[in-house]
Amino acid sequence: MINGSTSLIAHFGDPIDVVKAPLIYNPWFDSVGIDAAVVPMGVRSADYAQAMPAVLRMTNVRGALVTMPHKVTTVALLDRVSTAVAIAQSCNAVRKGADGALEGDLFDGAGFVRGLVRKSVTLAGANALVVGAGGVGSAIAAALAAAGVARLQLFDTRREVAQQLAARLRQHYPALDVHDGANDAQGQDIVVNATPLGMNPDDPLPLDPAGLRATTFVGEVVMKQARTPLLRAAEALGCRIQVGTDMLFEQIPLYLEYFGFGTTTPDALRAVARLG
Amino acid sequence: MINGSTSLIAHFGDPIDVVKAPLIYNPWFDSVGIDAAVVPMGVRSADYAQAMPAVLRMTNVRGALVTMPHKVTTVALLDRVSTAVAIAQSCNAVRKGADGALEGDLFDGAGFVRGLVRKSVTLAGANALVVGAGGVGSAIAAALAAAGVARLQLFDTRREVAQQLAARLRQHYPALDVHDGANDAQGQDIVVNATPLGMNPDDPLPLDPAGLRATTFVGEVVMKQARTPLLRAAEALGCRIQVGTDMLFEQIPLYLEYFGFGTTTPDALRAVARLG
Repeated sequence: MINGSTSLIAHFGDPIDVVKAPLIYNPWFDSVGIDAAVVPMGVRSADYAQAMPAVLRMTNVRGALVTMPHKVTTVALLDRVSTAVAIAQSCNAVRKGADGALEGDLFDGAGFVRGLVRKSVTLAGANALVVGAGGVGSAIAAALAAAGVARLQLFDTRREVAQQLAARLRQHYPALDVHDGANDAQGQDIVVNATPLGMNPDDPLPLDPAGLRATTFVGEVVMKQARTPLLRAAEALGCRIQVGTDMLFEQIPLYLEYFGFGTTTPDALRAVARLG
Repeated sequence: MINGSTSLIAHFGDPIDVVKAPLIYNPWFDSVGIDAAVVPMGVRSADYAQAMPAVLRMTNVRGALVTMPHKVTTVALLDRVSTAVAIAQSCNAVRKGADGALEGDLFDGAGFVRGLVRKSVTLAGANALVVGAGGVGSAIAAALAAAGVARLQLFDTRREVAQQLAARLRQHYPALDVHDGANDAQGQDIVVNATPLGMNPDDPLPLDPAGLRATTFVGEVVMKQARTPLLRAAEALGCRIQVGTDMLFEQIPLYLEYFGFGTTTPDALRAVARLG
């Protein structure tokens, strides 16, 4: 039960009624006896530049989670950003530094990569294709680069978006072979769908599964259904896969660490989550 | 458990760890199945003018409770104030009006008077003494005036504070016989201690109980102990009394109504409160 000594994590978004983080974090805080709570705060875009810093200055606020539509606009409001934020130009976690400065990070990609590491996917030297160069695709590309993949192919239907992401990746990882190209899975060790395709029943596939080999690892960001058409096609070909919610549950321990609440495992979080 | 659809009441204060409202409201919301929560927000004075309006604009925030040190500074930030706020120049409840304007009210005094009405104290035409013309004393004086007392005597060790309060009361209640005078209980039907005297064991009494008659009703705002030395002296003289927490529990239904959560009774609130 929230009270005056409870440490708060603000959760900024609009609309706010759809957010799921409280249904994972809050039962977990309860289950381990940590006096903390994620508090959803519905902030309209026009109010965000005033509200976000004001909330972060509150004495009982440990940090903030950021979701739609504020992940991009947050970046310009920060004093310090991580490499992932600089590359993705998107931020989903804010905290106050020891000096009071606002720091931002982005754990979508790191969560995605943690899931791959847990599944013993070899990242060092791998060839990877990321389809979709928006916020989450950029985050995953940045995390794959940080994890040491050798070659990164980026595809987005808005080609300049993929090119701009490639340029930012090159700046931070000069040794990485990164380029924009087709959504062609041939020759890839790791293939990622980072588009919303798969949320709706009549969506086209984000890429042609014919290019997949049995040794290709296929990861997904869509969470609405565990086995998207892409993942079903991949499994039929013998590929190993990662479902969308793995990225979610793998990244939450990173936020907990970031906000100073220790850590936990995705399994422990799944066990208490009330996602229904 | 707080989630994206929960209606929030912000609770502004500094320090924030001492606030008690969440320990009354939140168990009550739980007990009646209302998806709402009081969320303490520790806001420093320097940040308040930015934080308060920003929080009130959040889509899931229904209103705010205000406590030390922000009750006075809130007044200047509002678009509309109640008579109680105008007289007391203090505010402890803020909500958005239908037009988006910020409205403020103050229920300390109304809660105090509700307790008297519940105890069948005759207010219309009564003579009342209020000792202490600070925030809570002003609120009680305003509520006694609104309830129709005939004569109101105000005492404060800072005489100009009592005089200024008397002037504001006269402005709003021209028919009321209001004046600053001594902390003399003689001839009073209702006597109120609205000072902090009684919180500490070696505090002097706020007034000389020798002036009390058995028919005088004595009310107290100090909550630290139920029977303060003043109340013990009053009871020894046969006076009926009101303890400090009555004011607290009587005013909470008023806040619930103000924020649109229906209402309840002080007894129902006391039954679920976790004040320890």
